[in-house]
Amino acid sequence: MYRDITCGALRAADVKKEVLLSGWVHKLRDKGFVVWIDIRDRYGITQLVFDEERTSSDLLEKARSLGRETVIQAKGEVIERTSKNTNIPTGDIEVLVSELTVLNESLLPPFTIEDETDGGEDIRMKYRYLDIRRNPVKENLIFRHNVSMEVRKYLSDAGFIDVETPYLIKSTPEGARDFLVPSRMNEGQFYALPQSPQTFKQLLMVGGMDKYFQIVKCFRDEDLRADRQPEFTQIDCEMAFVEQEDILNTFEGLTKHLLKEIKGVDIDSFPRMTYDEAMKRYGNDKPDIRFGMEFGELNDVSQHKEFKVFNSAELVAGIAIPGGNTHTRKEIDKLIDWVKRPQVGALGMVYCRCNENGTYKSSVDKFYDQEDLAKWAEITNAKPGDLICVLSGEKNKTRAQLSALRMEMAERLGLRNANEFAPLWVIDFPLLELDEETGHYHAMHHPFTSPKPGQLALLDTNPGAVKANAYDLVLNGNEIGGGSIRIHDAATQAIMFKHLGFTEEEAKNQFGFLIDAFQYGAPPHGGIAFGLDRLVSILGGQETIRDFIAFPKNNSGRDVMIDAPATIDNEQLKELHLKLDL
Amino acid sequence: MYRDITCGALRAADVKKEVLLSGWVHKLRDKGFVVWIDIRDRYGITQLVFDEERTSSDLLEKARSLGRETVIQAKGEVIERTSKNTNIPTGDIEVLVSELTVLNESLLPPFTIEDETDGGEDIRMKYRYLDIRRNPVKENLIFRHNVSMEVRKYLSDAGFIDVETPYLIKSTPEGARDFLVPSRMNEGQFYALPQSPQTFKQLLMVGGMDKYFQIVKCFRDEDLRADRQPEFTQIDCEMAFVEQEDILNTFEGLTKHLLKEIKGVDIDSFPRMTYDEAMKRYGNDKPDIRFGMEFGELNDVSQHKEFKVFNSAELVAGIAIPGGNTHTRKEIDKLIDWVKRPQVGALGMVYCRCNENGTYKSSVDKFYDQEDLAKWAEITNAKPGDLICVLSGEKNKTRAQLSALRMEMAERLGLRNANEFAPLWVIDFPLLELDEETGHYHAMHHPFTSPKPGQLALLDTNPGAVKANAYDLVLNGNEIGGGSIRIHDAATQAIMFKHLGFTEEEAKNQFGFLIDAFQYGAPPHGGIAFGLDRLVSILGGQETIRDFIAFPKNNSGRDVMIDAPATIDNEQLKELHLKLDL
Repeated sequence: MYRDITCGALRAADVKKEVLLSGWVHKLRDKGFVVWIDIRDRYGITQLVFDEERTSSDLLEKARSLGRETVIQAKGEVIERTSKNTNIPTGDIEVLVSELTVLNESLLPPFTIEDETDGGEDIRMKYRYLDIRRNPVKENLIFRHNVSMEVRKYLSDAGFIDVETPYLIKSTPEGARDFLVPSRMNEGQFYALPQSPQTFKQLLMVGGMDKYFQIVKCFRDEDLRADRQPEFTQIDCEMAFVEQEDILNTFEGLTKHLLKEIKGVDIDSFPRMTYDEAMKRYGNDKPDIRFGMEFGELNDVSQHKEFKVFNSAELVAGIAIPGGNTHTRKEIDKLIDWVKRPQVGALGMVYCRCNENGTYKSSVDKFYDQEDLAKWAEITNAKPGDLICVLSGEKNKTRAQLSALRMEMAERLGLRNANEFAPLWVIDFPLLELDEETGHYHAMHHPFTSPKPGQLALLDTNPGAVKANAYDLVLNGNEIGGGSIRIHDAATQAIMFKHLGFTEEEAKNQFGFLIDAFQYGAPPHGGIAFGLDRLVSILGGQETIRDFIAFPKNNSGRDVMIDAPATIDNEQLKELHLKLDL
Repeated sequence: MYRDITCGALRAADVKKEVLLSGWVHKLRDKGFVVWIDIRDRYGITQLVFDEERTSSDLLEKARSLGRETVIQAKGEVIERTSKNTNIPTGDIEVLVSELTVLNESLLPPFTIEDETDGGEDIRMKYRYLDIRRNPVKENLIFRHNVSMEVRKYLSDAGFIDVETPYLIKSTPEGARDFLVPSRMNEGQFYALPQSPQTFKQLLMVGGMDKYFQIVKCFRDEDLRADRQPEFTQIDCEMAFVEQEDILNTFEGLTKHLLKEIKGVDIDSFPRMTYDEAMKRYGNDKPDIRFGMEFGELNDVSQHKEFKVFNSAELVAGIAIPGGNTHTRKEIDKLIDWVKRPQVGALGMVYCRCNENGTYKSSVDKFYDQEDLAKWAEITNAKPGDLICVLSGEKNKTRAQLSALRMEMAERLGLRNANEFAPLWVIDFPLLELDEETGHYHAMHHPFTSPKPGQLALLDTNPGAVKANAYDLVLNGNEIGGGSIRIHDAATQAIMFKHLGFTEEEAKNQFGFLIDAFQYGAPPHGGIAFGLDRLVSILGGQETIRDFIAFPKNNSGRDVMIDAPATIDNEQLKELHLKLDL
């Protein structure tokens, strides 16, 4: 037996007990006549003590010689500390060691195993197993476990069945790029790793499974943006005989449960907003509604004068920065530079100071009088002391730019409080999205999303105007879940495939099994998928998903710890009937 | 809203309620003046009734016209049945329908959606989504869900943390063949899909995670034997600061919990048997101990006469078939043919009838007298009325042959009762296994298994004799779990790699990260992995794992429903820097 108690368990009531502990040497303090060692395991830290009076000199020497991160086993008596440490749960006691065994040596770790480490990102990724010993990383993984368990418990109690869907499936070139897996037994053929179990969960509904869920890995071979992983985890759910309302209620229930159980936060009911409204008010389909700074559209009150920039703009819109009038001229110039950065892309910014005395001072006083500016203030909901920032131009671009400014100012003003949770349903998404490059429409959610009842005919005349029974769950400005009511009849699905540019043969080749299935009594159904990595990081009050993944990959899709991907044997290539083509 | 109650819920107490049901037309009986429809969903069947007296003629006609598996919605009043059906929970009532809506049509399914279907295996696999509508398949999937949930609950309550390990890892050609995933972003390089998360779970132990579990998909690109799947699911577990005894106790606890919760079976404590003993007594490292027929080794009482076949054999061993003396001569000849089949491979079989009157009659009476045969009976534990079957030859082969015979006879005698559960720990496995073809030793469990304390030196002199801290959990003749105490120091791991034929460079190249990790304070650790597919099928009283997998592949690794694997676009190949080499 290596231990009879963990390093986080001993309390004052345990004094005089004989205990056996195992763990890592976290810290060693050597005062000459007395040596203290903090022994650490997953559960906590316990102070071991050795002193000249009570410890044999051999044992004292042995203790003194231990390096950081050595794995040790210590036997001894729990004693009361003379000076208690109120910072840790075991701070009332220490263990006077009578036997000490080194279980394994350790080289000096390349960075310190402390909450605040001296190791940079790269070295910590390479030695991820050491990084995991650090409390913040360890606690994130345990937190993730707790969230997963609560999700499973809630959904299972609600009658959902966890069904495992296959990982070796078929490539569907539409949409994101698949990871492919050559088949040795089927020459020249490939499996694909699932981008999501979408079609399988729909087949489970056709199969009468009624309520399905799965916490499942998904794969996308995309050029990685910051904080995207080639493999990621979804909470994948589907229900039969449901309308949108049933789904929103069910998963609002799940999210409330998580907020309550995991964060102790009670939220009564989640607000809902259409996609169009979200774009109009926040310039964003995943608005952070923890704070205001809603958009004011100023076309009506800014296009009646001689200011050509505004007059030629599709949209003139502004936000009021709370207390922003304290900005110096220099600071405002910097802000203008910020919105002109290529990442934001505005051509310029008009501003208007709202003075405490009720007057206004704008960068366009040449064109607009106090009365005009008062209207701007009214529409952007600006108070005396605020700063109104106004952008203009093509509608979608202007909204995106102003949304970026809004988020930046909220960040700077500390309005994005990680301990506040503001969920929001965004509903009525457009069915299709215009690809500016190709001029073709593609599915905004996926090709299986059903149009709003009665809008099917509109596909021919004004495809961009068709709305879908599609919804996102947004939390603190992040999309944490998204889903839709699906098409469940072969005819509508065929129309959708046609509009998405599939020939009949392509549709049959790729999704024939689903179209077939829809002919054998498919029930109405719909579902949702949550991004678990993102959900966990937001619930954890952070925004970097990598911190909540045990062994993440870097931005080139590499695991730098195990050094993967890697070259393979020629023999392996040959068995797969492949040649490199570099 | 599609329904306010499911098809399995209504009882006598619900009579007079107005209800809304949705589901499939399971069966339709048309008596002219009355039409009954069984409407089915996941939860059960409810009888709908339409009759001339109480139903409008339009509605009656509409009901009459419905085909099997049509998806319908029915509104009506719950009424008491005149003739109750005690076979189903809703048998006291029926619903007098006032409104009927067809939600979706259905073609006639290619096989009947009944517990006993007329569909063959192939057609049911192609239309798996229809097969899942059948109760036995649906119930198997729900059963699997229940098992998974209980496993997670038990382990989480015991302090295990569910940590997701990566699916895109590195190929390790040693052992079974990997599925490979070409990397687009890293030209000419490949990921591999994990055969198990073995090294990652060990790194989690190095990382101080202490107790880890995961229900996780694993992949092996093997030529598929019957009932093997290229992707399969493991309950993967690892613990730090443990000895073998700790692991056995923990997972005996889990298994007992499952037997109790899922099957209502109480088992006090699991017997343990060494590998050597299992081979000696049952010729098998996963013996089915629900029944006797233990091997009797007869060398001492059969090699003293002139029977050359036995005298030249390394092993002479027999089993007593209970009541087997009822076999006619012809039946025994058939049994001899059975053991001579290539799949078993015996050269012949000696038998001895144990007559009710205490005398013996053997096929080798020329060589052995009654006194000899009495000894055989004593050693094989044969009773009057039994039939002793004796095989001989090279030890390992003879054991395997006799084990096959033992299992066959148990099957024929109905001794393999699916409702009886006989778990068993097999311990002290050999560390290495001789590959007869190459003459090299390879790891019996895997290269990370630790030899028994003190046996490391034996590796140089008698590698085959080294025992490992490795154990299997056997249930009803199937290995449901296996694991080991791992090596946790770099020096021992290096010795193991050397003995397994790795050059230092190969070892470093493939497992450098693990060897590195062992130098930074790796704790003693060990673990186990259960095959979930197998475990679930045995608990479910069946032996075909495919019946417990939602979307299984066939013996060529194909998913015949979605038709995968499949050819891919040249464009996709090109992006992966690959050419076909057919």
